[in-house]
Amino acid sequence: MKSPPTTDQSSPAQQEEEEERQYEMSRFIGLSDDVFAFAMTLLVVNLLPYADFGAAPSPAQFFQHLISPAFLDHLLSFVLSVFIIGHVWYTHHVLFRYIIKCDLRLFRLNLTLLLCVAFMPFPTDLLSRYGDAIIAAFYAGILALLNVLMQLLWWYASAHHRLLRPTLEQNVITSIHVRIQRAS
Amino acid sequence: MKSPPTTDQSSPAQQEEEEERQYEMSRFIGLSDDVFAFAMTLLVVNLLPYADFGAAPSPAQFFQHLISPAFLDHLLSFVLSVFIIGHVWYTHHVLFRYIIKCDLRLFRLNLTLLLCVAFMPFPTDLLSRYGDAIIAAFYAGILALLNVLMQLLWWYASAHHRLLRPTLEQNVITSIHVRIQRAS
Amino acid sequence: MKSPPTTDQSSPAQQEEEEERQYEMSRFIGLSDDVFAFAMTLLVVNLLPYADFGAAPSPAQFFQHLISPAFLDHLLSFVLSVFIIGHVWYTHHVLFRYIIKCDLRLFRLNLTLLLCVAFMPFPTDLLSRYGDAIIAAFYAGILALLNVLMQLLWWYASAHHRLLRPTLEQNVITSIHVRIQRAS
Amino acid sequence: MKSPPTTDQSSPAQQEEEEERQYEMSRFIGLSDDVFAFAMTLLVVNLLPYADFGAAPSPAQFFQHLISPAFLDHLLSFVLSVFIIGHVWYTHHVLFRYIIKCDLRLFRLNLTLLLCVAFMPFPTDLLSRYGDAIIAAFYAGILALLNVLMQLLWWYASAHHRLLRPTLEQNVITSIHVRIQRAS
Repeated sequence: MKSPPTTDQSSPAQQEEEEERQYEMSRFIGLSDDVFAFAMTLLVVNLLPYADFGAAPSPAQFFQHLISPAFLDHLLSFVLSVFIIGHVWYTHHVLFRYIIKCDLRLFRLNLTLLLCVAFMPFPTDLLSRYGDAIIAAFYAGILALLNVLMQLLWWYASAHHRLLRPTLEQNVITSIHVRIQRAS
Repeated sequence: MKSPPTTDQSSPAQQEEEEERQYEMSRFIGLSDDVFAFAMTLLVVNLLPYADFGAAPSPAQFFQHLISPAFLDHLLSFVLSVFIIGHVWYTHHVLFRYIIKCDLRLFRLNLTLLLCVAFMPFPTDLLSRYGDAIIAAFYAGILALLNVLMQLLWWYASAHHRLLRPTLEQNVITSIHVRIQRAS
Repeated sequence: MKSPPTTDQSSPAQQEEEEERQYEMSRFIGLSDDVFAFAMTLLVVNLLPYADFGAAPSPAQFFQHLISPAFLDHLLSFVLSVFIIGHVWYTHHVLFRYIIKCDLRLFRLNLTLLLCVAFMPFPTDLLSRYGDAIIAAFYAGILALLNVLMQLLWWYASAHHRLLRPTLEQNVITSIHVRIQRAS
Repeated sequence: MKSPPTTDQSSPAQQEEEEERQYEMSRFIGLSDDVFAFAMTLLVVNLLPYADFGAAPSPAQFFQHLISPAFLDHLLSFVLSVFIIGHVWYTHHVLFRYIIKCDLRLFRLNLTLLLCVAFMPFPTDLLSRYGDAIIAAFYAGILALLNVLMQLLWWYASAHHRLLRPTLEQNVITSIHVRIQRAS
């Protein structure tokens, strides 16, 4: 008797609403994925000046260049930031597995998160140039900010099951809070 | 008896048409989302020169740099433009919640809108360099243009329910016109 | 009795095949849309040097700058190329409304098309710098190449209904050939 | 009696799970496609300095420029890398035709693959500047790394049918291993 929410037995009005909801979530998520992917890929721009040696390098020179501290710093920052953006994406995708509606406030929280993701090339560039404590602290600060935003987003969506599937259990909600915490 | 338009009871021809319509809208929207997301992310390029200090900065120098007017202007322009593009996207996604068909004219209107979105890094760059009234007016002019295009797009789609769901009520159409107006 | 191809009455194996086919087409098309959108948005990079005046400009200087031939050439090339890429996308999306399968050869033809689309910032940059006949001819040559590739793609897909819906009528196939021709 | 896994006869819980699975895979794949497309398109940045001649070139100068070894090297590297990224994408899309679940480890393997794809503009830039053996070996090394990662990804997903459709036959699994091998 209890028909699941997406079957054909639902009324046209319900179906229209369901379609609208799916449309909203899919665009919301599509935009986010695009920003994550571009931010990741754009990081390589930072490495390109290192492809220019002036004259053609000898094998020894090329090898030395590849293991020079300056290049390695840039390469490691690139790898680090791609992995960090990747894992922020992963947490984001765990959250949105359970979030099934969105409203303007969630959109703004998410936009702020995307802003920080799009900002990542800047601290990455800093980190690849200067390895000292103050820059590392700045970089870590941006990561902490990303984490706080993610917590806020989940807190906003999950309070009173505001934007979640009504059937979601409280322990899943808590476990995701813990998960975000640990990811930082 | 009245079967909703997407059920399995519809004839193969109807279903084919429905699939085609969905294909059109999803690509149309996918392309738009990509341009929005990319325009947002590309703005960071503008900040990258500020990651270069020459010699490694002391903590005090780094902090001073972060609060220097030049950097703050760039950072604020970046944040402002990301939020503006985000909100243009939001309005765009409200409009396309109701637009269910597209034709060549709607495509061209939308393309012009995307052109202006893709153009945003230019006024943003100007704004981050020069804060005077004339530049601010130019920036505001681009935003006004985005708003006019959005109005035009909605006016074209909604006149005689041209590209809307036939069941959409007139007061929703009007309320969206008001909403776009206010967003400006 | 004749059940449409996507109903629930089809066997699991058929359904699996149908799902695979949809997966293929949707990724194929998603990749293409991404390349179109990025190529469009990337064009703005070409304009950014014009946002730098040295000292803060007076309103008159700013206005003069906006109507200077060099800036207008860059702006017009940007607008022209966005519209051209947009219309190539439009033709692409008309073609793929009817193409329901893809194979490695279609993929390669499409990849070559995407290569030319991704190449567009280069002729655009040339055109914005030098307005003479030889550069215009080079730009037009790239557009002609895009057109030839589109014709080839449609010819390959439509010959013997190779990758089309079997029910598609011959006059639709011909009309699309004419449409691509005219678009050039 | 045996109902296919996605019909309406399944219970709400099963349906919810199925929806979650589809959500996961579609975001996973969407992110990957974005990175592939962006890496491809970003390669053109490498060509843009060649659009600047100083004074307006005569037709003869322009033609000579187009066939100059430096420009041809850049153009060929661009074309080569777009085709290589395109074919890595093609193999990726063949793999994910059969992978229907994902877990954190698969995500990390895929992220490493995307990292290498996003890195491609760097070896491409090197190759376009210096054609000697050591650079070609470096470029080939990155391609070999991409191939190893793809093998690893398929090996991880296919061992014990971990993340595959349970009905997939062993000979398909083996044939894909061979296919990846040959693609290198």
